[in-house]
Amino acid sequence: MSTRSADRGDGIRVAVSTVILTLRREGTAAPRIALPLVRRTRDPHEDAWALPGGWLDPTEGLTAAAARTLAETTGLAPSWLEQLYAFGAVDRSPSRVISVVYWALLREEDAVDAVGSDPENVAWFDAEQLPALAFDHARIIEYALWRLRNKVGYSRVAQGFLPPEFTLADLREAYETILGRRLDPANFRRQVDATRTLIPTNAFRTGSHRPARLYRDATDVELADRGPLSPEETSTEETRIP
Amino acid sequence: MSTRSADRGDGIRVAVSTVILTLRREGTAAPRIALPLVRRTRDPHEDAWALPGGWLDPTEGLTAAAARTLAETTGLAPSWLEQLYAFGAVDRSPSRVISVVYWALLREEDAVDAVGSDPENVAWFDAEQLPALAFDHARIIEYALWRLRNKVGYSRVAQGFLPPEFTLADLREAYETILGRRLDPANFRRQVDATRTLIPTNAFRTGSHRPARLYRDATDVELADRGPLSPEETSTEETRIP
Repeated sequence: MSTRSADRGDGIRVAVSTVILTLRREGTAAPRIALPLVRRTRDPHEDAWALPGGWLDPTEGLTAAAARTLAETTGLAPSWLEQLYAFGAVDRSPSRVISVVYWALLREEDAVDAVGSDPENVAWFDAEQLPALAFDHARIIEYALWRLRNKVGYSRVAQGFLPPEFTLADLREAYETILGRRLDPANFRRQVDATRTLIPTNAFRTGSHRPARLYRDATDVELADRGPLSPEETSTEETRIP
Repeated sequence: MSTRSADRGDGIRVAVSTVILTLRREGTAAPRIALPLVRRTRDPHEDAWALPGGWLDPTEGLTAAAARTLAETTGLAPSWLEQLYAFGAVDRSPSRVISVVYWALLREEDAVDAVGSDPENVAWFDAEQLPALAFDHARIIEYALWRLRNKVGYSRVAQGFLPPEFTLADLREAYETILGRRLDPANFRRQVDATRTLIPTNAFRTGSHRPARLYRDATDVELADRGPLSPEETSTEETRIP
């Protein structure tokens, strides 16, 4: 259609970054959302913190690049990985860079031991107490947290923070942390019961409180519906190299 | 993080394409979803039909490129424009191309007169009777229709197909076409009443049926919540040139 100067699409570079979210608990306090950031070792924004990521390799699919970034940063496999948005404002970097950003959820228990391939330049931060960030990464994280808050309203992604077996209080705490407000325990239990997606196990967690029954997810399917972008199709197509 | 060969992000080109959706009515039949396609005049896939789009200009924002494509193809302004997904499978084109795809809704009345800058190579198709398509564009359209079906469940985007004043039957027909199933008129009216987003006007449509009251949308806000990606912010940032 167009006969503009950029007829060949040159002069633009593509990066892939990933917002990696998990829950962190200290003692008996309510859990908090935490994410790993990487200290930049070169300009632009040298020494500032940034989302994990890098240039897209021409032979690598977008999802594969995001998964590789996640493995390099944390050494972990995500419970949920989804494309967030392609950020492409002309002034977001000194040169023209399109960042295809993914967001990932890690199980709380996994993230405690997270160690990547470059640990001296990686640190975990409370999502509400972030340092100064490079580029437009503060806005990207804000959007990822907004997507998470919205998505828990029509999917089971909150369970991506939890181990395979969890109590109703664990699940409610995850929702409360994501939504930033308290939920009534009795109402929450009724709503979860109504969805019929949790199976009670015969195991209980014991401790300082009265024993709490452990539940597991009723289905083997993904935590949210990807529609025509099923992960099998995505990964097969994107990792095949011509 | 990475020290792979693609250290500078070269060898990859960025295109922007747009899935432009509208409703088309023939006589008294139920409306159908229609979209414009462009016949390719060069390889790869010469003569095949494709989504409107082109290479991203280094000085142009992503949303601006999608809006330009839409104007060039149809001569029209959309009632809704949103980024759909960045498609980047390594084998989707002979060379490595990342396509940042947008989807747009046009009001039915506007689209009847749609004329772009290259009308001889543009044609409108029924979304359920598409010709052979170039690249992965058939899958992209499938995903756009899935997104639309999902989004009408938690937003007012279906109104993006309608004129500023419409009857409840118009609105129900739009939902029925999007969802691919009949909706009970009385239930539909109750659900719409419960949302309190429609304002009855004092005007009626008269014709072969009994007069039907015209409604308009209660709010001036966007048809769906964009969260931190508010359109003002997006367009300001993306069209500013350093």
